[in-house]
Amino acid sequence: MTYLRNCWYMAAWSDEIEKGGMFARTILDEPVVLFRNNEGEINALLDRCPHRFAPFSKGKVDDGVISCGYHGLSFDGGGQCVHNPHGAVLKNMKVKSYPVIEAYRSIWIWMGDPEAADRDLLQDLGFLETAPDTAFSKGYLHGQANYQLYVDNILDLTHADFLHADTLGSGAWTRARAKVTETDDSVSVNRECPNEIPSPLQRSFRNLKEGERIDSWNNVDWHAPAIMVLHGGNVPVGALRDGSINTMTTLNTHIMTPETERTTHYFFATTRDFMTDDTDFNNGFAETRNRIFSTEDEPMIHAQQERMGDKDLWDLDPLLLRIDEGAVRVRRKLARMIEAENK
Amino acid sequence: MTYLRNCWYMAAWSDEIEKGGMFARTILDEPVVLFRNNEGEINALLDRCPHRFAPFSKGKVDDGVISCGYHGLSFDGGGQCVHNPHGAVLKNMKVKSYPVIEAYRSIWIWMGDPEAADRDLLQDLGFLETAPDTAFSKGYLHGQANYQLYVDNILDLTHADFLHADTLGSGAWTRARAKVTETDDSVSVNRECPNEIPSPLQRSFRNLKEGERIDSWNNVDWHAPAIMVLHGGNVPVGALRDGSINTMTTLNTHIMTPETERTTHYFFATTRDFMTDDTDFNNGFAETRNRIFSTEDEPMIHAQQERMGDKDLWDLDPLLLRIDEGAVRVRRKLARMIEAENK
Amino acid sequence: MTYLRNCWYMAAWSDEIEKGGMFARTILDEPVVLFRNNEGEINALLDRCPHRFAPFSKGKVDDGVISCGYHGLSFDGGGQCVHNPHGAVLKNMKVKSYPVIEAYRSIWIWMGDPEAADRDLLQDLGFLETAPDTAFSKGYLHGQANYQLYVDNILDLTHADFLHADTLGSGAWTRARAKVTETDDSVSVNRECPNEIPSPLQRSFRNLKEGERIDSWNNVDWHAPAIMVLHGGNVPVGALRDGSINTMTTLNTHIMTPETERTTHYFFATTRDFMTDDTDFNNGFAETRNRIFSTEDEPMIHAQQERMGDKDLWDLDPLLLRIDEGAVRVRRKLARMIEAENK
Repeated sequence: MTYLRNCWYMAAWSDEIEKGGMFARTILDEPVVLFRNNEGEINALLDRCPHRFAPFSKGKVDDGVISCGYHGLSFDGGGQCVHNPHGAVLKNMKVKSYPVIEAYRSIWIWMGDPEAADRDLLQDLGFLETAPDTAFSKGYLHGQANYQLYVDNILDLTHADFLHADTLGSGAWTRARAKVTETDDSVSVNRECPNEIPSPLQRSFRNLKEGERIDSWNNVDWHAPAIMVLHGGNVPVGALRDGSINTMTTLNTHIMTPETERTTHYFFATTRDFMTDDTDFNNGFAETRNRIFSTEDEPMIHAQQERMGDKDLWDLDPLLLRIDEGAVRVRRKLARMIEAENK
Repeated sequence: MTYLRNCWYMAAWSDEIEKGGMFARTILDEPVVLFRNNEGEINALLDRCPHRFAPFSKGKVDDGVISCGYHGLSFDGGGQCVHNPHGAVLKNMKVKSYPVIEAYRSIWIWMGDPEAADRDLLQDLGFLETAPDTAFSKGYLHGQANYQLYVDNILDLTHADFLHADTLGSGAWTRARAKVTETDDSVSVNRECPNEIPSPLQRSFRNLKEGERIDSWNNVDWHAPAIMVLHGGNVPVGALRDGSINTMTTLNTHIMTPETERTTHYFFATTRDFMTDDTDFNNGFAETRNRIFSTEDEPMIHAQQERMGDKDLWDLDPLLLRIDEGAVRVRRKLARMIEAENK
Repeated sequence: MTYLRNCWYMAAWSDEIEKGGMFARTILDEPVVLFRNNEGEINALLDRCPHRFAPFSKGKVDDGVISCGYHGLSFDGGGQCVHNPHGAVLKNMKVKSYPVIEAYRSIWIWMGDPEAADRDLLQDLGFLETAPDTAFSKGYLHGQANYQLYVDNILDLTHADFLHADTLGSGAWTRARAKVTETDDSVSVNRECPNEIPSPLQRSFRNLKEGERIDSWNNVDWHAPAIMVLHGGNVPVGALRDGSINTMTTLNTHIMTPETERTTHYFFATTRDFMTDDTDFNNGFAETRNRIFSTEDEPMIHAQQERMGDKDLWDLDPLLLRIDEGAVRVRRKLARMIEAENK
């Protein structure tokens, strides 16, 4: 397996790195150090001093200049040495730097050819920025499996009926047949669930009586390499989806960045259009989601990876079902993109 | 190394799996899930759903049908899909199933060609079933070494004089020359120790006075792949071995099932013909045995494996002694059986 | 990578092995057991019984004879079997033995051709023996990196200005240009630091006033494979280095023995010529050094190794600076010695 390289990967939530601070994270098997100058501008370098290969992240940062803690060489955000305590600074004293962008409360990094880095290729996730703090929450999970398994997980939400039966599942996911559509660079998996049994959480949010039903829907849009936007909502049976009090929708991101072939940085966020100024509800919602992800999804996906071992999904000849259509299309599209990149 | 496959391996003690319950264990590098229906009948499947490779053991079992906890596919004990919440059930929706037998308080599994599975090939261990509960005890040890090292350990009991000097050893094992005999499918190592110093445990069981001696004997019968029956006993010097109060014998099993090349499921059991209704004695006897196995045998065999690393015994050119005859014959016989099977 | 074999490696501090006792340590990937007879004479054997490969270190030692705890074979310090409880002792019952020397409060082992072992090749470290106990201290660190990284660390002491800035650094190491000289079998890195800012420790030892300066110097002599003697000192500016009360010098060893390619036995010792009968000062000095080594050097070198992974230094194309001259010469000399040995 190789990774798609010429694309933006989410490297961190913005608030993981303080003004004037630094933060180390391995991305696509490469150790990266992210650091901000005193104005908050962000830079990213290979987290390995070219002199003796000590990590910069064990050194210090001073207004946009990072210094190795072992022998004191300093580098600017572009990777050029700007201070050598032991002699002259030469042009060739450089360390690999990575293009980075800060947008949507997040830091994005370009792991491929720096010349090809293009801000316009960043997927628009503006709703993360415009959401009020009381209708926004986010999280991070250090996943113990290949990132594509986390992508598969979101592209087939029928798992909610089984794995999350006491919170998100009611059988509605499974009863509705998803419609999968594809563009050049995206795949969408959409579900309509009219006149359906609400999930335990929907029942609680709406204060529904026993037997009361809802119309619900759910759309997942995948963008390469592993950025998903999930839009879901529900209304009373037959009601208009007009944004009125009747409509409850959430708009979510599920973003996976490979750390290694077997570990994943999983970033997720939730926004919503109901009870948007209720801090307690917001916190409770986030806690429930975090609990579900960490105690239900993560153990299952980790176990799945353990059973697969070092084998690729296709080598194991999976028994494909209708529900796999979205994930299969995404895997094929991504494989073609990687193949094209390596030509 | 390959394993002998067309034979019965002990997979579990019967009471490790409840009626209506399930139990996961890796055997010969394959993850297996064992489960019972409501009548207690046992089945075994590869513990990996053919859809997305999640372990069934993270799902649930309902009267002989096991369901994946990820997307809800269900399979019967034969490995045939019997429920697909997402579409039709097709004939080809199958998962590997393993022949299993329940006998002698144990579950036995056939890891080779299912067509070749033959109940008659199961070694008779009926004494495990007929022993009264107060003269029976069993145990399990998760061994950190190749199973053949555990087999070697039982086939050369002179180690008791050194490794178990304060319980089972008196020098008698070493002074007696073992007689090794062989049939087509078994190897026996028999020892007579007339007029010998009793071991500390024998001295205590018999309430012997300082200097008092005994006649003792010990026979180990090995059956492929790694099932051993150990029959040992002692009488006052010169007394008949007639089952009278004078005779103290134990009949034991030592059964090893490879988990991986470097780890072993070690099942052991003890029955005896003296003090057969003494629960306290029975418990104390089991505790002593468990302590000896886990604090003396296991650390030594694990250390031995660590020193051998990934090398095969023969590659390391062991200095063979007379006492190795039984183990060497067994290793050769087993190697020939594996070779024959792979032809 | 291979190791230099025909040379003396430090195996242990003398007091790590009691009279009549034994001690196991892996050296150059080989498990070794060191043991003393009742007179204290030391011997070293491969820590693996040739019979069944159990470690001797799980057995027992009796006045220079070591016995396997599994089946009781006994061997003398030369590796010859001297007792076989199971039959005759034959000449060919042998285990590999290693030449060992005890000198300078240490045990030295020869891992190469025993015929080539020559006591005269042992580097003279007599000062370790003659130092009074109150002006001597030693330590051991189980390093999590290749031994050459520890050697590099001592051969470029400018790191003290950065990594040990609050104890050993003042910028003086960096400001002084080291003079590197080489003989057939040694490399020396010498530094003169006249009229320099004292380090925090020097300031404290001398009770210097703010702004007071010193003349200091530092010489590191490397001997193959990884034995370094570090002589450093300081005097008031312009004073004679005459051993009078004005002169403060320390004489130290830094000795690395590879355990594996990725782990190191790091032995270090300090002697000094000032406050030589002050036990409290001696203890405090040792504690400070041990803290620096274990909380500053070790984490940095371990992190450096992690960043290098399984790659060799040269494969990673390091950005060499003037300060690397000593380490580079040593690495080249050692590589030539290893190459010569393997011809």
